[in-house]
Amino acid sequence: MSRGDAVPVHVDEERLDGLVVRLGEVGAHPDGGIVRTQYSPAWREAQDLVAQLMREAGLTVREDAVGNVFGRLEGDGSAGTLLTGSHVDTVLHGGAYDGALGVLAGIAAAEAAATAGGRPRRAVEVVSLCEEEGSRFHANFFGTRAILGVVDPDEPDRLVDADGVTLADAARSVGLDPATFAQARRDDLDLFLELHIEQGRTLVDSGTDVGVVDVITGLKWLEVEVQGSTDHAGATAMADRHDALQGAARMAAAVESVVTEQGHPAVGTVGVMRVQPGGANIVPGRVGFTVDLRHPDPTVLERLEAAVRERCRSVADDRRLDVAVTLVKDTPPHGLDAGLRTVLRDAADACGASWRDLPSGAGHDSQTMATRVPTAMVFVPSVDGRSHSPAEYSRPSDCARGASVLATALRALAW
Amino acid sequence: MSRGDAVPVHVDEERLDGLVVRLGEVGAHPDGGIVRTQYSPAWREAQDLVAQLMREAGLTVREDAVGNVFGRLEGDGSAGTLLTGSHVDTVLHGGAYDGALGVLAGIAAAEAAATAGGRPRRAVEVVSLCEEEGSRFHANFFGTRAILGVVDPDEPDRLVDADGVTLADAARSVGLDPATFAQARRDDLDLFLELHIEQGRTLVDSGTDVGVVDVITGLKWLEVEVQGSTDHAGATAMADRHDALQGAARMAAAVESVVTEQGHPAVGTVGVMRVQPGGANIVPGRVGFTVDLRHPDPTVLERLEAAVRERCRSVADDRRLDVAVTLVKDTPPHGLDAGLRTVLRDAADACGASWRDLPSGAGHDSQTMATRVPTAMVFVPSVDGRSHSPAEYSRPSDCARGASVLATALRALAW
Repeated sequence: MSRGDAVPVHVDEERLDGLVVRLGEVGAHPDGGIVRTQYSPAWREAQDLVAQLMREAGLTVREDAVGNVFGRLEGDGSAGTLLTGSHVDTVLHGGAYDGALGVLAGIAAAEAAATAGGRPRRAVEVVSLCEEEGSRFHANFFGTRAILGVVDPDEPDRLVDADGVTLADAARSVGLDPATFAQARRDDLDLFLELHIEQGRTLVDSGTDVGVVDVITGLKWLEVEVQGSTDHAGATAMADRHDALQGAARMAAAVESVVTEQGHPAVGTVGVMRVQPGGANIVPGRVGFTVDLRHPDPTVLERLEAAVRERCRSVADDRRLDVAVTLVKDTPPHGLDAGLRTVLRDAADACGASWRDLPSGAGHDSQTMATRVPTAMVFVPSVDGRSHSPAEYSRPSDCARGASVLATALRALAW
Repeated sequence: MSRGDAVPVHVDEERLDGLVVRLGEVGAHPDGGIVRTQYSPAWREAQDLVAQLMREAGLTVREDAVGNVFGRLEGDGSAGTLLTGSHVDTVLHGGAYDGALGVLAGIAAAEAAATAGGRPRRAVEVVSLCEEEGSRFHANFFGTRAILGVVDPDEPDRLVDADGVTLADAARSVGLDPATFAQARRDDLDLFLELHIEQGRTLVDSGTDVGVVDVITGLKWLEVEVQGSTDHAGATAMADRHDALQGAARMAAAVESVVTEQGHPAVGTVGVMRVQPGGANIVPGRVGFTVDLRHPDPTVLERLEAAVRERCRSVADDRRLDVAVTLVKDTPPHGLDAGLRTVLRDAADACGASWRDLPSGAGHDSQTMATRVPTAMVFVPSVDGRSHSPAEYSRPSDCARGASVLATALRALAW
């Protein structure tokens, strides 16, 4: 398909914003933000609402064995299935757009494309994936992995939440049967498109309407354990201390130095720090913290990991501490499908939307889907780049423009 | 009393060590160390054992309204009461010596002095104070404060532990009646001596047998709250972050710098750090931490506080963060009684024990008692300076030598 051939499909701003408002009420937490973790009562309520919204949009609804909800427009049988959507779960105290907007833009886009074009050639499905965030179980991309058939058979009984509930028991509590999880696998998908908020400032700061993701950045998670000596905060002279927290503070600062020395788009975050024993009058003997390192170039990512390890070791040696650094998650960068990216750029042009290629610093279902199915992503601007926070917000006009680009791409690919 | 007049009283090493071993079994925790917090079942068991040990040593036992246990040797009525002892409660996962050794050395010393000298002129009491550490309730020095009559009437219902249990309910659970707490006040005490482990390295490193405390260091506790922005760890560029943890790490490092620039004996500790929201893939939006600052000179202590405040402010300004620093505890330094310190030095000479004057970096019941009653403290060496830790240890020979110095001082003062 050459540039400019796409027929623009318009998604109504009020229609989409109405969907965002309705789903955003599900899981609203009294302490702020939305808490809609996998297989919780709020999650069940959200998937039931999504199913209803899909029906209202003229889609045929089905929930699979793991709780992914699909809304389908049947094709004429001459081609496979084009899937679009995102995840319905949230981080703790997250916002109304991360994941949810991709589901709802998919519904509105499929509805608008069907209204404009009638029955598609290729079947079109919108999916509300059951899990992506890993905010209750360390089950990241559970919905997508179930569709690809790569969930380990022991995961449902092995994964437990902070209260000791297994994923299997949680699934049963929302009417699912873990024994049937393998039935979620599908082999009929031939394309995947995901709309998502950017969660960064590139689009807002450059005044660009939509982003076409070229690569989803690679990610390494390190667990760092610093061992010193627990001592009395009053009686132990500064020179005699082996203070694990003072060491961890320098190591956390070094994480920032390593990524800023590398330069943008390298990022590094210390998001968790556990101090033991954790008394105001006790010199900390042990501190554990996490390091999240990301870069779209795998070679650079390896270098960042090596530099963080070296700096942690150096701080520990200087301060007579022991340190252990463990790589607990290693997700390589994923390039997205070149052909589908061209379709998205053409769709943006057809809609009169400005666009730019950009990497995704966040992980997405698309990176997992892309291991089997040609996949592309479209980003809409995040006000102030805020996400994973109650302050997360995208303007209704930006959401509708992105959804129109998605609808235009669906029409180009399926009608 | 001039130097050299003291009659040495010998406390048997095996006798005292046997007491340490017996009490050290009460509250031993499966995860290591001793957990014997105020009004817990282990605390009740400990005070009951102490009462039994006092009776075995020939003392007349009484428990007061707040659970302080006293063992008394009646005097001839010609003078008031000489009190010695320390506290029975521990920090979480503490050792067998902090507090406990002062109680047990008091029992062994009173027993040895009575064996050597018969009925005293001045009544001698050994006390096992109910609380000093503040490790369950923020009730520090509760036992001593009850004796001095300075417990606020609303404290028992106001102070709650981490599980929401009030001090009053906890007291009832171990057979005490909070309505009678005021009855613990005593006005008949005219001297107080406390034996304690040093909890630092001054004595061990200098090869000195006992320390005579000249001043108990002043203490300031600050609560620092750093406010930034919660953001996505992958999608938020380093330049766009307001990372509360990166700020807190620099502030914690600054606490160390401030006290090391001041020099020994200044100490500063960050013992608690709470990171919110606390996800590996979330830039922390809020971090709270504690600062414990100590120095025996109140002017220097004020300067340290001002410097920490200024450095926290400066880090916050550089990193576009907000910071609030609150002084939550402010205990001025307390000089101990010059006359009693001379008695202790003479007792050490009489026992052939080397001694040195030294400040206490830790807080003790003595600093509270000293506000009303002439008070002195004797320190015994801590191996490796370790305390508030399962590794806390003092050699039986050092404990017995310190207890002999205490017994010799008791004899000089009461017989």
